[in-house]
Amino acid sequence: MEQKTEREQEYLIGDVARIVGLSRDALRFYEKKGVIRTQKKENGYRYYSENDIYKLMHILYRRKMNSSLKEIEETMVMDRENTVRHMKEYLHSCMEKEREELKNHKRMIARMKLLERDMRNIEEHLDRITLRRFPAAYIVDECHDLQEGLKNWFQLAALKDGMDMMYFYTELSLKKSAQKVVNTRLLLYKNLEKVLTDGFDLSCLKETGEMGCIHTVVETEELLPESRIIRMMEEWGCKHGLKTEERVYVNHMTSFSLKESPTYCLELYMPVSGATFPAALEI
Amino acid sequence: MEQKTEREQEYLIGDVARIVGLSRDALRFYEKKGVIRTQKKENGYRYYSENDIYKLMHILYRRKMNSSLKEIEETMVMDRENTVRHMKEYLHSCMEKEREELKNHKRMIARMKLLERDMRNIEEHLDRITLRRFPAAYIVDECHDLQEGLKNWFQLAALKDGMDMMYFYTELSLKKSAQKVVNTRLLLYKNLEKVLTDGFDLSCLKETGEMGCIHTVVETEELLPESRIIRMMEEWGCKHGLKTEERVYVNHMTSFSLKESPTYCLELYMPVSGATFPAALEI
Repeated sequence: MEQKTEREQEYLIGDVARIVGLSRDALRFYEKKGVIRTQKKENGYRYYSENDIYKLMHILYRRKMNSSLKEIEETMVMDRENTVRHMKEYLHSCMEKEREELKNHKRMIARMKLLERDMRNIEEHLDRITLRRFPAAYIVDECHDLQEGLKNWFQLAALKDGMDMMYFYTELSLKKSAQKVVNTRLLLYKNLEKVLTDGFDLSCLKETGEMGCIHTVVETEELLPESRIIRMMEEWGCKHGLKTEERVYVNHMTSFSLKESPTYCLELYMPVSGATFPAALEI
Repeated sequence: MEQKTEREQEYLIGDVARIVGLSRDALRFYEKKGVIRTQKKENGYRYYSENDIYKLMHILYRRKMNSSLKEIEETMVMDRENTVRHMKEYLHSCMEKEREELKNHKRMIARMKLLERDMRNIEEHLDRITLRRFPAAYIVDECHDLQEGLKNWFQLAALKDGMDMMYFYTELSLKKSAQKVVNTRLLLYKNLEKVLTDGFDLSCLKETGEMGCIHTVVETEELLPESRIIRMMEEWGCKHGLKTEERVYVNHMTSFSLKESPTYCLELYMPVSGATFPAALEI
C-alpha cells in the first residue's frame, strides 16, 4: 500500500534540517527536550521518520503560537481524547490572554493617534482662527476646577485602563469680559469607547452636544488663555456675523518645558449660537 | 488673575503622591531621571508646582504608550516646534511597530482558532458521517505527494508569517477501488487572508470551488485512510441517494503520539456530484 511506503521513508538529520529549515543544533535540542524521538540504527546513525517531520511542522506551528516546549511535549504524549480535552482548555486560556494583548495594543495605538492629532492640531491651527465642531465625547467627570480635574484624572486613569485618554476641558465664563472658571470636564472622545477595558458602562454618561465653535490653538505660559486671545476670537466671530455665547472651552492639550519655564498649547472652543455648519466641518 | 493663583499652588511630595497615585520613591526616581524638576525652598523642603503634576500626567500617559523615560525627557525639554516635529516622527515609527504587533497577535489568535476548530471537528465528527461543504480556500501550492507538500509547507511558512496556517489536503483517486495519490494541495482558508503579512498577493491564486462532500473524521495509524473507511463513506452516500465522484480529499489535521506509535486524525471530504445543499450547511 502506498501509505506504507510513505511511512517507512527515513531521513538523516541533514535531510531533515534542509526540509524543515532548522539547524542541526535546533533538531538535537528538540530531541534532548523529548519532543522528537529519533531511531538509532545499528550503523550508529539516528534516523527521522516521516512522522517526525510532521511533528516538527506541528512544533513550528505551536511555537508561533508561543506555546512552550514543555506544553508541546505534554500534548504530544497524550492520547486523542486527552489531547482534545487538554488542548481545548489550553487554547481557551491562551485566546483570553491574546485578546487582552490585542486590546492592549489597540489602546496603545489609540493613545498615539490622540497625540498625533494634538500635534497636527498645533501645526495646523496655531494662531489660526476657524469654525469647528466641538468634539463628540462622553463627559466622564465634571469638577470645580483644573486642580480637582487633575486629581480625578489620575484616579480614573488608575481605575480603568484607557481612561488616561481623557482630555480636560475647562469652561470659562466670559460675562462682563472677565474670565471665570465654571468647571473642568474630563472628556473621553466617542470613538475611544471600543478600546476601553470591558465592564465600564459609558452609556449612562452625558455627552457633549452638537456645538459649532470658533476655534484656535495658542501657545501660552499660563494654564488659561490671555484675554487678548479671547478678544481676537470674539472679533473674528463678529466679523463673520456670528453671535458668541460668552463662554469658551479650554482644552489643556499638551505641555512643553522650555528652559524651565512651562509652555502650554491650549485649544480653544468658543460656542456660537444658532450657527449652521456644513457637513464637511468635522473635528 | 485666577490662573496665576493656580500656577503658584505648591505641593509637597506626599500631596503629589496622593494625587497622582504614585509612591514617593517613584516620584524621586522621576526627579533623578530629570523628567521632573522640583524647587528646593529655604526650609529644605522640595516643592512641586501645578505644572509638575500636569507633567506627571503626561509621563503616565507616555509610559502607557511604552515610551522610555529617556524619550519622554527628550521631548520635555524641546520647544514647541521641535516637539511637534520630533513627536510626529516618533509617533509614526511607534505606530508602525504597534500595528505589526497587532497583526502578530491577530495571527496568534487565528492559529488558536484553527486548532480549536480541529479539536471541535474531532469531538463532533469522529466516526460520524455527515454532508458538508468543502472549505473555501486559496490553493497556495499543488505538490505531487505529502512528502513534497511537507517540504513546501516549511519553505512557505518561513517565507511569510502566517503561511504556517496552511493545511494539507491530499487528493486520492478511488477509481477501481484502489487509493491513488493524485496530489497534495496546500490550502489557506479564505478568512485567514486578513491576518497574513502584507505584500503577499493571494488574488492570483486558484480557489477551491463549491463542493458538497460526504464528510467524516477518523483516527488512524497511517497517513492515509483505511479502505474500510472509504467504503463506509460510499455506502453512506449510496443510502442517501448521493452520487460520489470517486475521489476523496484527506486533511492531515493533527497528530498525537501515543506510546511511541503515531496516531493521526484525518478529516475526509468525498465530493458528491450535483448535490444541492441547504444554506445552513456551512463548514
